[in-house]
This record gives sequence, C-alpha cells and structure tokens, in this order.
Amino acid sequence: MSWRNNLRAVEPYVAGEQPKLKNLIKLNTNENPYGPGRLVKQAIRDFEVDRLRLYPNADAEDLRHALAEYYGLKDRQIFLGNGSDEVLALTFLTCFNSDLPILFPDITYSFYPVYCELFQIDYELVPLRDDFSIAKEDYFKENGGVIFPNPNAPTGSTVTVEDIEDVIRHNPNSVVVIDEAYVDFGGDSVVKLIDRYENLLVIHTFSKFRGLAGIRLGVAMGSEELVSHLYDVKNSFNSYPIDALAQAIGLASVKDSDVIKANAAKVMATRERVVKELKAMGFTMPESRANFIFIKHESANAKDLFMKLRAEGIVVRYFNQPRIDQYLRVSIGTDEQMDRFLEVMKDILAGA
Amino acid sequence: MSWRNNLRAVEPYVAGEQPKLKNLIKLNTNENPYGPGRLVKQAIRDFEVDRLRLYPNADAEDLRHALAEYYGLKDRQIFLGNGSDEVLALTFLTCFNSDLPILFPDITYSFYPVYCELFQIDYELVPLRDDFSIAKEDYFKENGGVIFPNPNAPTGSTVTVEDIEDVIRHNPNSVVVIDEAYVDFGGDSVVKLIDRYENLLVIHTFSKFRGLAGIRLGVAMGSEELVSHLYDVKNSFNSYPIDALAQAIGLASVKDSDVIKANAAKVMATRERVVKELKAMGFTMPESRANFIFIKHESANAKDLFMKLRAEGIVVRYFNQPRIDQYLRVSIGTDEQMDRFLEVMKDILAGA
Repeated sequence: MSWRNNLRAVEPYVAGEQPKLKNLIKLNTNENPYGPGRLVKQAIRDFEVDRLRLYPNADAEDLRHALAEYYGLKDRQIFLGNGSDEVLALTFLTCFNSDLPILFPDITYSFYPVYCELFQIDYELVPLRDDFSIAKEDYFKENGGVIFPNPNAPTGSTVTVEDIEDVIRHNPNSVVVIDEAYVDFGGDSVVKLIDRYENLLVIHTFSKFRGLAGIRLGVAMGSEELVSHLYDVKNSFNSYPIDALAQAIGLASVKDSDVIKANAAKVMATRERVVKELKAMGFTMPESRANFIFIKHESANAKDLFMKLRAEGIVVRYFNQPRIDQYLRVSIGTDEQMDRFLEVMKDILAGA
Repeated sequence: MSWRNNLRAVEPYVAGEQPKLKNLIKLNTNENPYGPGRLVKQAIRDFEVDRLRLYPNADAEDLRHALAEYYGLKDRQIFLGNGSDEVLALTFLTCFNSDLPILFPDITYSFYPVYCELFQIDYELVPLRDDFSIAKEDYFKENGGVIFPNPNAPTGSTVTVEDIEDVIRHNPNSVVVIDEAYVDFGGDSVVKLIDRYENLLVIHTFSKFRGLAGIRLGVAMGSEELVSHLYDVKNSFNSYPIDALAQAIGLASVKDSDVIKANAAKVMATRERVVKELKAMGFTMPESRANFIFIKHESANAKDLFMKLRAEGIVVRYFNQPRIDQYLRVSIGTDEQMDRFLEVMKDILAGA
C-alpha cells in the first residue's frame, strides 16, 4: 500500500508538436494564418489592467450575449469554456453517464478516447467507410451518447445537415454532440437544428475560424436545459474559467466577424488552389470543407514525405495509425506558405 | 428512459457575489486591493497580438521556470492550471482515488465537497476545535487523502509547519494537500517540506497575493512524480489551459515580486490596525494570517450587520451555516476602504 495506489493512471493525449525553430512553416495544428484582427488589438490596448485584481464575470455574460446574437440563440443556450477542449471534457463528464457505450468514429479527434479513459466512460469505435465518410445508419443503434466532428478531423470530410438530423431523430435517448470546430471554412452548421432537438449539443471554438488559438475560448450551444447542466458541472469544477482579458478579446472578435469571415474566405480560396495543384501531382484526398486537407500520394510514402518536408522547415501532421498511415494532414496557411509547400513537395517527388 | 437520465446531477458551488453597483466597497471575495503592478501592464502593452493565432506553449514553460526559481524548486516540480480552482479540481481527480474517505475540516473552502460530489469521491468532515483551530491528531487515522487550507478559509487561522509535518508523517499512504492560497499575508509555507515528502502537494494562486484574480493562474508544487501525474491528467483534460497572454502576465508578475511583497505588507499592516479597532468595538476573531478576518460581535447579529453594511454599499461575506452563522468574513481593502468600513460599523453598532 502506498499513496501511489490512489493516483489516477491515464494515457495522456499528445498534441501536435510546437517546434521552436525559427522561420518554420507550421502547417501541423490547423491554426489560422491570419491574425485575430484589429478590434482584438484595440480591446487589449484599451483593457483597464487594474481590473485584473478582481475576479472576472463568472459566466462571461457580455461575450455570451454577443454570441447569442451572432448565432440567433438565447443567452442561456450558450456555454463558454477555456478552449473547446475544456468544453468537450465537461461535455463528456456531464452528458455521457450511461451504462451503454458512447459511439464515435474510429478515425476522429484523438481526444475523445482520452476523455473516456479519464472519466471511465465506455465507448465503441464506429469505422468510417472506406472513403472516410460517416455512415449515418451506424449511429442508429442503442448507445449512451453520440459524438463526431463535422467536418471530421483529420479527414476534413462532412456529413450533410439532413443526415445529422436523421442521427438525432434515431437517438431520442442520447445526447448527440456535433463538434463543429472547422465548420466556418465551408461547412454547413447544425446550429439551426438546436431549437428543434433538446438533446443536440453543438461545439464551436475561437481557435480556428477566429484566429485565437492562443486565448482559449470554446463554445457549446444547445437547449437551455442541456446548457444549464453544463453550467452546473462547470460551476462544480471552476467558477471562473474565462479570464477577464479573454472575455474582452472574445467580445472584440465577435464584433469583428465580417473581417474574420473575409479571412476564412481567403483560406478557402487558397485551399481550392492547393487541392488542384496537389491532384495534378498525384495526390488524392477526401473533399475538405476545413482549413486543412488530408492527402495521400499515389506512390510516395507518407512518413517519408513528412520527414523530407520537415528537413526543409515545413511541419505537417503525420499519424502513425491503422488506415491513415499513408496520409498527411496539411493545414492551409497563407498563399506564400502554400506556394513554398507546393514547391518543396514538387522537388521531393522529383527526387524520389 | 430519456437522454436526461445520462446527465450528471450536481449541486454546484456558489461563488461570492460580484455585485454590479457603482462605488461599492467590495470586501467579499478576498481580492487584493492593490493592482497587479507595473511589469504586468508593460507585458500586456508589449504583447505581440498576432501570436494569439497560434496555440500557447502547452506547459507554460517560461512561467514554470520563473516560478521554480522563485520557490527554489525544479521546473518539473511546478504544475500550472487555469486558476487554483482548476488545480484543485485536477488534484482531486488525480490524487483521491481510494476506497477510503478523504479528510478535510467541517469549516473550510466550500469547493472541496463540491469536487467530491462531481467526481464521486467519498469524504469525511473533521470538525475544527471550538476555537476554529485544526487539531493535527484528527488527521492521524486511515484515509484516502487529506486536504486543508493553511491559513484556513474562512477562519484565517493557521497550523504550524511542525504540525503539518506531523500530519504528513502519519500519512505515508495518502497524498496530503496543503492549499496555501493565503499564505503570503503572514503565514508560514510548507514548500520547504516538499523535497522531504513525495506525497505532499502545496497549492498557490495568483489571485490573492499577486492581485491577478482576473487572469486565472494557479500553481501546484510537489515531487516530480506527483506533479507528472497531475500533468498526465491535465493533458487528458485540456492540453492548453493557460492562454498565451496569461503566461506573459504571470511571468511579469513573478519578476515584480518585490513590489507585490510590499503591497502584501501594506495589507497586513492595515489588517493589524483594523483588528485592533474592531476588538475595541466588541468584536472577537481567530488570529488571521490571511488578507481577510473572520469576526463576531459580542451582541450584534451577524446577518443583521451584513444587511446593514450592504445598505451602505459595503459588501462582506456571510455564511448561513452551522457554527459560523454569527461570523462575517471581511476582506482587507485599502486603508481608505477600511476606514469607511470601520466608520459605518461604528454607526451601525451605535444605532443598534
């Protein structure tokens, strides 16, 4: 017997590396190549620093209200957390307490099984189809909850709103969570279904579309009843997860949404151009509606490409995992960054 | 059967109110009356806002290193979280997984039983002595873990380092957590015991001493082994809990420690003066080494005083709880604020 016996043993999630090299082209963690915008800069400059001696508003009321207006929901349908990872963790803890396993795809955000292990939630992996699409019928069986990202990560492929509605209709006894971290790069959101289904929860983040990965803001949206349960758990965990500066920054970002949408349109245009060039070079990929693409070459080995890109100062994401070990996930950067990526890739393939 | 059956039912913690009235004298949540200091302002002004598009350093390495130097520990003995409430929550989740109940005082930080309910941890309340002191012998019995604040909240009273060492010695099979949120206002820290006891965890916060309640930074310190387990759980919950601005602000605060210590000395001097005046007015209280006092009047009713102070724009904390319902917890503000508090209190008592 030792104090060590009382420690929780977990296999922690390993995030994409954050290399410290200079002049790196960083295409490995799906960050937005464009900054958070002018109004955020202004909000930081105008922030009254002495206010930091006080606790922040516990429910980030002003930011919640701005988001409610942005999404056409009520304030009490908006939940905020310290990044969408915290929102996801609290969602698992709040919503997945059944004896039945929850369902999610075999190829998806790798944090889901980690939350299950941390909170001892039983789960069942649902294989994607061979083309990496999600088959709605696979989620029609009994379960303790359903979660998948749309667009899915790391594949970038999407499920239609109609198919998601069908999944919800078949699951009146489960909470269905749709993780829309990447939806603003051309996807179709199911926020519009929230008022029809009390058991639907939709998760967004400020890290991708809003270019604010550094500030840690995540959002969950659903029925007032479901959201109030998330707040009860949040208030049992940490009364003040969103600091006062983050609240001011988030609010400025919401006010700057037109500029941010224009930046997302630039990312999408760059993506379409890069996709075309990569196809001409012998790559295939699922159609992406995210700020990344998931590419496989007809002959070159993925790990080999990953290493050779890295040697040239370009970092992408490689997953040494069954079914996807011949793919690379490449975030969409600026046009200049992607030109360099394409140029280096051409050289690598020519040399191979 | 309904999706509602799978929701976690909890009784959430209710934090001290954050009233929105203007010109209020806010003495109810133990905030520091002095701001976070000049270097923090500078750090915010100098922060390169475009960096916010990138994820922050996942382990807040620079801040950890600065804290390790400040405390005379190794970097790997420092754990950081989004406020000490998150640090506490992750500590409960990581360290308290025994079949035996954990032990903490009946009168203490009211979040402890909330974490136990959230994570389904069995606990036993250990009554304080009549004078509100902690009797070390009460913690010598078998248990699944021990936690108490020192100074204790809301009483402000302290346990000696020798007594805490005795508690640790009697608990080789448990993690012993000492929550030192208020230690820098005249208490004696057990950080110096860390290198002797691998099962000791000490928790600090940036919210009180460092005047940064608005930024959400908490610290846990212990053996490398214990801290690495906290990181495993943190990395299973949220890879990036500390945003990039908070890291820069925390680092600036550590560099400004001399100024912050001088502010704490001012708070302590104000406390001693206020204590003397209150005793002359018929109040008794445990000796406080915190930035608050816990006072009881010989004849006036506590709730009545609370209401009358509030009517005059002074907010203190009243706990409607067995054993302490005749006490008020009063944070120590600036000299001007406390002069006004004493003046109003005199008037109330004269009119009563």
